[in-house]
Amino acid sequence: MIRISIDAMGGDHGPGVVVPALATFLERRPDSRFIVFGRQEAVHPELAKFPSLASSVEFIHCDVAVRMDDKPSQALRHGRGKSSMWRAIEAVKLGQADVCISAGNTGALMAMARFCLRTMAKIDRPAIAAIWPTTRGESIVLDVGASIGADAHQLVDFAILGGAMSRALFQIERPTIGLLNVGVEEIKGQEEVKEAGQILRYTELNSLVYQGFVEGDDIGKGTVDVVVTEGFSGNIALKTAEGTAKQIAGYLRAAMSQSLMSKIGYFFARGAFNALREKMDVRKSNGGVFLGLNGIVVKSHGGTDHEGFAAAIDLGYDMVRNRLIDRIEADLQLFHAHRHQLSALGRARADEEGEGEA
Amino acid sequence: MIRISIDAMGGDHGPGVVVPALATFLERRPDSRFIVFGRQEAVHPELAKFPSLASSVEFIHCDVAVRMDDKPSQALRHGRGKSSMWRAIEAVKLGQADVCISAGNTGALMAMARFCLRTMAKIDRPAIAAIWPTTRGESIVLDVGASIGADAHQLVDFAILGGAMSRALFQIERPTIGLLNVGVEEIKGQEEVKEAGQILRYTELNSLVYQGFVEGDDIGKGTVDVVVTEGFSGNIALKTAEGTAKQIAGYLRAAMSQSLMSKIGYFFARGAFNALREKMDVRKSNGGVFLGLNGIVVKSHGGTDHEGFAAAIDLGYDMVRNRLIDRIEADLQLFHAHRHQLSALGRARADEEGEGEA
Repeated sequence: MIRISIDAMGGDHGPGVVVPALATFLERRPDSRFIVFGRQEAVHPELAKFPSLASSVEFIHCDVAVRMDDKPSQALRHGRGKSSMWRAIEAVKLGQADVCISAGNTGALMAMARFCLRTMAKIDRPAIAAIWPTTRGESIVLDVGASIGADAHQLVDFAILGGAMSRALFQIERPTIGLLNVGVEEIKGQEEVKEAGQILRYTELNSLVYQGFVEGDDIGKGTVDVVVTEGFSGNIALKTAEGTAKQIAGYLRAAMSQSLMSKIGYFFARGAFNALREKMDVRKSNGGVFLGLNGIVVKSHGGTDHEGFAAAIDLGYDMVRNRLIDRIEADLQLFHAHRHQLSALGRARADEEGEGEA
Repeated sequence: MIRISIDAMGGDHGPGVVVPALATFLERRPDSRFIVFGRQEAVHPELAKFPSLASSVEFIHCDVAVRMDDKPSQALRHGRGKSSMWRAIEAVKLGQADVCISAGNTGALMAMARFCLRTMAKIDRPAIAAIWPTTRGESIVLDVGASIGADAHQLVDFAILGGAMSRALFQIERPTIGLLNVGVEEIKGQEEVKEAGQILRYTELNSLVYQGFVEGDDIGKGTVDVVVTEGFSGNIALKTAEGTAKQIAGYLRAAMSQSLMSKIGYFFARGAFNALREKMDVRKSNGGVFLGLNGIVVKSHGGTDHEGFAAAIDLGYDMVRNRLIDRIEADLQLFHAHRHQLSALGRARADEEGEGEA
């Protein structure tokens, strides 16, 4: 049985989307139990609409709901210990739940998760991992916005975190890892990216395959299973891709309604268009995963509907079932056991002087 | 009459694409003259195929051709003074041409352009500007890869350069400027981006309207006319968008050929699909513009065909005709005349302490 704590007050629609999502999810995974945190007057009416939830949901009233526009520091000040967001995270810390899901604001959720769960030993900073649909399937991209900038060791941590997530979620035994970089020779890359590449190359971890640098267009191609970057460029890449997808969908809609002929064409091809819509459905890959904390927190998109929120729960469920945290801990241990190899890095680096990265 | 210098040896296809592009372009703009640099044995056979070019092209043989995989330092070492790339750039410096177009490798072209033309007075570093198709039209995004990282003053320079290009190319009197950033409150932004925002806000230039921070998905929406960022995230945004567009085009092709019905639909809607293809045609927005140098250099995509290369020439032509360099110089002068206002920044900043950016 997997136990899931839910912040019912997050997102643009709150319990009106979250509660129906629980019902949708429970049909798929009847072996789940929920602890739902929120304001009673908002959540009870929604719960009443889904009698099927009664035996699987424990509801806990919280006076405070973190607002979508609260700054992280405000949220912590007003919501620590008593908001639905805090309590949902805390349920993971207290061992009452295996994973926490919230559609609340990202900054507040990360601040609270960090404060409450703390980062794992040997991890400097947590990251937010996104699942990116590619032409080959799905890849993981991290960090997409937990923090700005990262040094080489933090990038290596992200590689380990993302690699463990890839194995837990997609059952890829040795996921391939790429460091996001720009392709122009010689101005190629920030020093920290280059150094991270060297560390990954020389430690030769059994849990992952370091493939070298990748560029922005490699993400959608699925060139590697895990794309590692710091939060600024990761966030920009993610939002740029979302924006481009919306832009093209708009072009397509406009093109299909431009003439009678195109409308007839649309009518015949509507099955294909539905398949395409399915393929481009951002709800299916909804959910940013907070990695590097002592517990799993999944951030659902704030504007999503109940299908999207249910997809975020799916994600949390799968990661718990596949023991994500254990895998990360094992990989970290492995990495630090290989540390003596790292000490060889200085020598190796001198040997390789002038040799470029892939 | 506008005089254009051409590096015929650049790109994946060299003169086989470049020369036909000249013919295509000349039909549109018969008032142009070309100086074409390249290896005689490669260029002459191509020129022979287009007798219409004879009266408009001066050909100059160069022994050396910079290769697509040459590192900038190699290219400079072997090609300075004698390669087709160098000579084409130098023609601008010597006043023999108004603009230089090359499909050669970006790093080498930038290194040579910088070395030969030098950066403008009061500009620290050049930038590469891309034209980005948006749902509202076209925006300019810079820097997309001239260099990694930028301090606040360099970002402000980029805003001025991009603003001038927007006015020269799109006749927008006061283009709106946005600084690319991430949206999470409080971890929001790198210090240099914040500081650039403050400088732009307090100088209140007549030549542009500073609109605040924008995010990755704002680029495709056309939220602002000019998106300013440093080369690492700019390059990643550009390539990620290109990758996403290709990915979706692939999905669409697959969907349309999946069944008889969808093929029939495609047949009826083929006019609409052609319009869509036209809309998504990357060749039309082909050309990265090197800004901040004492002369205009346009970098065409290396893999483009003759239509794409002709579009890059269009771009160079328009910028010359609309006196881009004069505009940049005027804007820079204006900015530095406003410098006394900048000195008020320290005080203004103290007043505004704690107040967020848009």
